[in-house]
Amino acid sequence: MQKQKVLINGERLKDTLEEFADIGRTKNNGVTRLALTDIDIQARNHFRSVCEELGMTVKWDDMGSMYATLEGVDKDSPPIVMGSHLDSVEKGGRFDGVLGVVTGLEVVRTLVENNIKPQVPIVIANFTNEEGARFEPSMMASGVMSGRFDKGMMLQSTDKQGITFGEALKASGYEGDKANRLQNAKAFIELHIEQGPVLENEATDIGVVECVVGMCCYEIEVTGDSDHAGTTPMPMRRDALFVANHLINEIREKMSKLDSDLVYTIGRMDVSPNIHTVIPNKVVFTIEARHKEVNTIRQVENIIQGLTESKGKEKCEVTATKLWDRDTVWFKEELVESLENSCTSLGYTFKRMPSGAGHDAQFIATYLPAAMVFVPSVNGKSHAEDELTSWEDCEKGVNVVLQTVLDLIGHR
Amino acid sequence: MQKQKVLINGERLKDTLEEFADIGRTKNNGVTRLALTDIDIQARNHFRSVCEELGMTVKWDDMGSMYATLEGVDKDSPPIVMGSHLDSVEKGGRFDGVLGVVTGLEVVRTLVENNIKPQVPIVIANFTNEEGARFEPSMMASGVMSGRFDKGMMLQSTDKQGITFGEALKASGYEGDKANRLQNAKAFIELHIEQGPVLENEATDIGVVECVVGMCCYEIEVTGDSDHAGTTPMPMRRDALFVANHLINEIREKMSKLDSDLVYTIGRMDVSPNIHTVIPNKVVFTIEARHKEVNTIRQVENIIQGLTESKGKEKCEVTATKLWDRDTVWFKEELVESLENSCTSLGYTFKRMPSGAGHDAQFIATYLPAAMVFVPSVNGKSHAEDELTSWEDCEKGVNVVLQTVLDLIGHR
Repeated sequence: MQKQKVLINGERLKDTLEEFADIGRTKNNGVTRLALTDIDIQARNHFRSVCEELGMTVKWDDMGSMYATLEGVDKDSPPIVMGSHLDSVEKGGRFDGVLGVVTGLEVVRTLVENNIKPQVPIVIANFTNEEGARFEPSMMASGVMSGRFDKGMMLQSTDKQGITFGEALKASGYEGDKANRLQNAKAFIELHIEQGPVLENEATDIGVVECVVGMCCYEIEVTGDSDHAGTTPMPMRRDALFVANHLINEIREKMSKLDSDLVYTIGRMDVSPNIHTVIPNKVVFTIEARHKEVNTIRQVENIIQGLTESKGKEKCEVTATKLWDRDTVWFKEELVESLENSCTSLGYTFKRMPSGAGHDAQFIATYLPAAMVFVPSVNGKSHAEDELTSWEDCEKGVNVVLQTVLDLIGHR
Repeated sequence: MQKQKVLINGERLKDTLEEFADIGRTKNNGVTRLALTDIDIQARNHFRSVCEELGMTVKWDDMGSMYATLEGVDKDSPPIVMGSHLDSVEKGGRFDGVLGVVTGLEVVRTLVENNIKPQVPIVIANFTNEEGARFEPSMMASGVMSGRFDKGMMLQSTDKQGITFGEALKASGYEGDKANRLQNAKAFIELHIEQGPVLENEATDIGVVECVVGMCCYEIEVTGDSDHAGTTPMPMRRDALFVANHLINEIREKMSKLDSDLVYTIGRMDVSPNIHTVIPNKVVFTIEARHKEVNTIRQVENIIQGLTESKGKEKCEVTATKLWDRDTVWFKEELVESLENSCTSLGYTFKRMPSGAGHDAQFIATYLPAAMVFVPSVNGKSHAEDELTSWEDCEKGVNVVLQTVLDLIGHR
């Protein structure tokens, strides 16, 4: 006879999420909890007291990232870590980030109430300033921890009021010891809302994330002449906007022939002098593209670099400058498979998928075994007050993480 | 034997232009002479004293427009009027406007030195605030005089410092009597730089302007969804910028099939939220088009109004709002022909052409016989410090006006 499956408590999960949503809840049922503000500190204090009530020990590191540890049988073994971030953007949602932290709480509560004493320590992590909404860049603390960002520079990052991250960290009371950073782990698992429409659209319960996609971002600058809109015949114009339009046609035509998973976006476009009676003499726009395969990103870069030679009939100058790129980060295959097995054993539909957005897990994956779980976002919305994931989907996601944790500690 | 032709003095014309250019000259040899500033008042005072030295009587009207009158044999006959404006834009050129006023001075000087006593009065006019650079709208005083603008509203027009036009006018000392407005004329002739590249490009001496073209200006608004650039697959996007791009393609394709004299410009374009990692959810752009034939403008409007039904594959909303339009103003055919005859008699090449830009003459033409003469603009530049017309071309233009004035007073 099969052993009765251990499952989380969906009602408790919902209550815990609502407790956190009360800290910084907006009029439209979203959340504003910018990193290291009083509201974020309230959320941190709440997290800390809840963990301590569960018998966990809470520490924080030199970037303010918090780690609550449930002791394992082998006290010094590499822990199983779950976590994400408690900060939000201005008028963000109630799920982004906090769901990954609350996942850890619910898993630990389930272990405790089932008297399961894990062989290795279980850690719940809250990484500081993932959003980068108050202090740029995003994923700041995990970036420092993984060696991607320079800590000295990060401490100098300044918010709109002129307060540095370093000052805000000190004032928060959460400036801890560098020795407390996450240095070793058997596994790091981050559950997060998808922030995209794919799972909902395909009516799939769970996204098992295999990678965070690589990307490149370029700025294209077109230079022409700002002549008078009334007195300059069409053939004598050097219209930067018309050339930009031609380049966008070319981008769309060529990119649409690449792999259908490629996403590319022209998100920013500035026209000068931007007066209705003056022919534009300058247009600057960004083009960013994301795909898991490095070869596809290379094809994209070839297309973008080719734009400087393709100006249509107009005689404008075109330059393309790479703003940045990043390589695809692949998650630990054994962990990904374990998460898939958990879905199967729970009878949930799932899809192996890449993450198009960035997450703390991508930095942690550079030095520790890591993976992510996505739950569906209604209409794909996030970073907005109407961000939504059904309680049922949250529960399913946390159950998947629980099963994999049980797997990892040999309890199944 | 043919009578010796009366001609202007090119050196004197140049000196007079340079005298005015000294009043507000910029470091880069342009001019900043915003309406009713101290600099503009200096230029007005200079104009007044030069006219008085020539034996002219100078008056000004309730909008500050100035009229210097050289008495005619028939004192009360409708005068022949030449003129333009002494104000400039910020960092404008040395020719725009002032050349039309100095034309009048040089014609009167030539008449006086040749002892030609005209049958009708000769008036030189300086219209207040043609540029609209300090107080919107442009062509303010001629607009009020022709009944196009409401005087009360114009007096309330405010500059960046919060000073109203009415206050500035009073302080200038040039608030005169409404009775002094230009009410009747045998002819009004405005010589102006072309502000476009056509004459230079076709190596033509003179543009004889037959009309100021009609135009229409629309604002197109495209509304989509601002989803995440990394997580939203291409087919699930409602990308307002891609739709705007599609609309611009359609505009260009359809407009290019209309008359080749049509000019159309997408000068202003604003993208929201204008962040490189967010799909644009709103793009607002203007499209304005100018042509002398009302039927062509109607075709343009049909194309623009059709855009709301043509969104490409993307599911965005498109609206088209007319911001304004204006009808073509045709100049007096007899005057246009007289100017052409003057060109011919002087051996200058000329071209009958429309004006794509607005000028005081277009308002005056609504109630008085009027016409314009264009001289070439180097590279078509104006409203810029490097605006340039050669002294030779200025001289030719003024000679054309002189010949037509002589024609009108029966002296040839």
